[in-house]
Amino acid sequence: MHEFKYKRNCLYCENLKVLDLVKIFGTPLYVYSYKTIIDHYLKLKNAFSEINPLICYSVKANSNLAILKALVNQGAGLDIVSGGELFRAKKVNCPANRVVYASVGKTEKEIEEAIKYGILFFNVESEEELENINRIAQRLNKITQVAIRINPDVEPKTHKFITTGKLTNKFGIDFDSAYRIFKKRNKFSYLNICGLHIHIGSQITESAPYLSAIGKMVNFIQRLKKEGIFLEYFNIGGGLGIVYHKENPQTAQEFAKKVLPLLRKIDLKIILEPGRFIVGNAGILVTKVLYIKKTPRKKFVIVDSGMNDLIRPALYGAYHQILPLLNTQYSILNTEKVDIVGPICESADFFAKDRIIPKVKEGDFLAIMGCGAYGFSMASNYNSRCRPAEVMVKDKKVYLIREREDYSDLIAKENIPTFLRI
Amino acid sequence: MHEFKYKRNCLYCENLKVLDLVKIFGTPLYVYSYKTIIDHYLKLKNAFSEINPLICYSVKANSNLAILKALVNQGAGLDIVSGGELFRAKKVNCPANRVVYASVGKTEKEIEEAIKYGILFFNVESEEELENINRIAQRLNKITQVAIRINPDVEPKTHKFITTGKLTNKFGIDFDSAYRIFKKRNKFSYLNICGLHIHIGSQITESAPYLSAIGKMVNFIQRLKKEGIFLEYFNIGGGLGIVYHKENPQTAQEFAKKVLPLLRKIDLKIILEPGRFIVGNAGILVTKVLYIKKTPRKKFVIVDSGMNDLIRPALYGAYHQILPLLNTQYSILNTEKVDIVGPICESADFFAKDRIIPKVKEGDFLAIMGCGAYGFSMASNYNSRCRPAEVMVKDKKVYLIREREDYSDLIAKENIPTFLRI
Repeated sequence: MHEFKYKRNCLYCENLKVLDLVKIFGTPLYVYSYKTIIDHYLKLKNAFSEINPLICYSVKANSNLAILKALVNQGAGLDIVSGGELFRAKKVNCPANRVVYASVGKTEKEIEEAIKYGILFFNVESEEELENINRIAQRLNKITQVAIRINPDVEPKTHKFITTGKLTNKFGIDFDSAYRIFKKRNKFSYLNICGLHIHIGSQITESAPYLSAIGKMVNFIQRLKKEGIFLEYFNIGGGLGIVYHKENPQTAQEFAKKVLPLLRKIDLKIILEPGRFIVGNAGILVTKVLYIKKTPRKKFVIVDSGMNDLIRPALYGAYHQILPLLNTQYSILNTEKVDIVGPICESADFFAKDRIIPKVKEGDFLAIMGCGAYGFSMASNYNSRCRPAEVMVKDKKVYLIREREDYSDLIAKENIPTFLRI
Repeated sequence: MHEFKYKRNCLYCENLKVLDLVKIFGTPLYVYSYKTIIDHYLKLKNAFSEINPLICYSVKANSNLAILKALVNQGAGLDIVSGGELFRAKKVNCPANRVVYASVGKTEKEIEEAIKYGILFFNVESEEELENINRIAQRLNKITQVAIRINPDVEPKTHKFITTGKLTNKFGIDFDSAYRIFKKRNKFSYLNICGLHIHIGSQITESAPYLSAIGKMVNFIQRLKKEGIFLEYFNIGGGLGIVYHKENPQTAQEFAKKVLPLLRKIDLKIILEPGRFIVGNAGILVTKVLYIKKTPRKKFVIVDSGMNDLIRPALYGAYHQILPLLNTQYSILNTEKVDIVGPICESADFFAKDRIIPKVKEGDFLAIMGCGAYGFSMASNYNSRCRPAEVMVKDKKVYLIREREDYSDLIAKENIPTFLRI
């Protein structure tokens, strides 16, 4: 469900015509619906209301300050993975006790910054990291809360690049090693090991992998309890899949209904880390058709956005629905099979291949749907292209939440050495 | 050949110890050798000296101003693909008559900027674009030179993402269509169609695809000549492969020896567009080992650089040699099989899998070799990570050619709407 709909053949974001946004802000343009973001957050919150979980939005999905602030204002916490994301959490005044921090490669500086801020806990990915955090906490003389990230070795049935809970992945700690850590937990005198964490992957559409992983975790938690090891938090991670194409993912209600019986067996504070589920379908990337190019083999729709703006099709083979901003009767009746490609000088630069879409012409605009997550956050300046502007729509108003880059931004940090200045 | 070598077990860039650079600039750090860049440029120039070609460095491979300036000072031109790259060409005072501009998606604004600068010519990718440039040139009242980019339909035997000269690719114009364009060239009254262009792909290690493509082009040029259509330029593009692993690419000499006999058949000014060939092995990415993590299935070396800094392994499955900055007798004798991975929260974030390397420990530094091309130029801020610094070494001196980003850079263009500021 999202707030991008046709009204009288024009694509709207909430109550604004997207075409009008293009006139003001140009293309390529990321457009987000405020209502969709909040709706998705509330859907998850309501589905789990019985246990009142802390919902920590996964910042890496889309880290724009406006989106973070919108969610924090609703009571959400933040799931961060770097010092840069901690900096963002501070900028939106996210209460420290609503911030959790996961990453296999936290640096000394990042750990120190997070301890000083007083985050709720670190999701710890290895025993080596545990020792590291303990040492830094000792230096700062501050008892620090951590959760052990377990690698439950389940197959989430998603793209291999976003599979994170198998033993061949770099993430988390296996059950046996985690058990040994708990047994010697007194060794970590500046740590309060107060929780467990899992995150098995991203864009998971079925409940089975979750049930398998959570089931294993519940057993483990009960085993620890019997041995007098009591925990406070169980962070079940994120990864809920959304509709890009023909997926039929579980709803928040369905997900809750299946996992709540398991969670009821333990009496821990539950944490969720949704990212894509909240913002994935809350954003689109709008692009202009520059050329229609017919070749002996193919017809190409060449647009002004490229893989630097949205790398998901190239990197993950991801499918994105592509819709014209203006859907006339003529265009609906006259579809054609095309490749929709960007201006970048490599064949990885495509948005759709052999896709049947309503007939478009030069100067038309297309909306690449489902670009709210892992869209702008993965954007680059490849081919010395300026990154797009981002706007947020709320009802009948639009807000520029990130200015378009200009040429001077590209070189702002570069210097030509004096010996070359001839 | 490059200037990264061990001396007394320490990796040097020219005459500086890379470890000393790390102490000054931190990690992750891109380090380039000035001498290697110039050497590679001169190798190509010398190999083709008989015909004195214009060598237009392909800016997209690495667009740092210092690298562009170094090459322009040597007499190189620039092969650009966007308005941003044109801006860079101007910044290094590249003479306009040494700039050529290719891209399937040139915008109105970009075309206008390039015509005003007076570039040597556009490499035109479609008839639609030809009409577009003609129209803009007419508006600006300036006769504009163009070369037709031909798609010669050859298989370059490289990664599908960097294959650009097959008819299923979006690039160039097939011979028949190009011929028809030449026959009606008077229609384009503001264009001087003065050349032909090919670019069949990137990281091509064999000569056969070039010989096939150039052979077809020579025939086409001779056919046009017979019909009274005389050209001035033949741009044979780039794509020369380099050594990343076990490749055995042709040298510049071998390449020249094979293609010169073909080029002698036509009396045109030859243009070359090397990118990777010049900078690929002239740069390394230096990273610090954060954690050594043993799991039941694997051993992971977790470093402080990620796929946001270098996406080639994830995107192209690219192999990069990885060397320790300090190569002790102990480490050489004690190798082990590891995955070398970054801190980013997805499984795409790796630099090497099941790689046998000298044993390393936390705090050690590794050099990811062959990162001069398509390294920094494709870098992003994914996971809110600051992009690395770039330095250039010349003999015993080092120059900071791009400052490291900091947290404030991440959010410099973002705004929180007033309605959210509660």
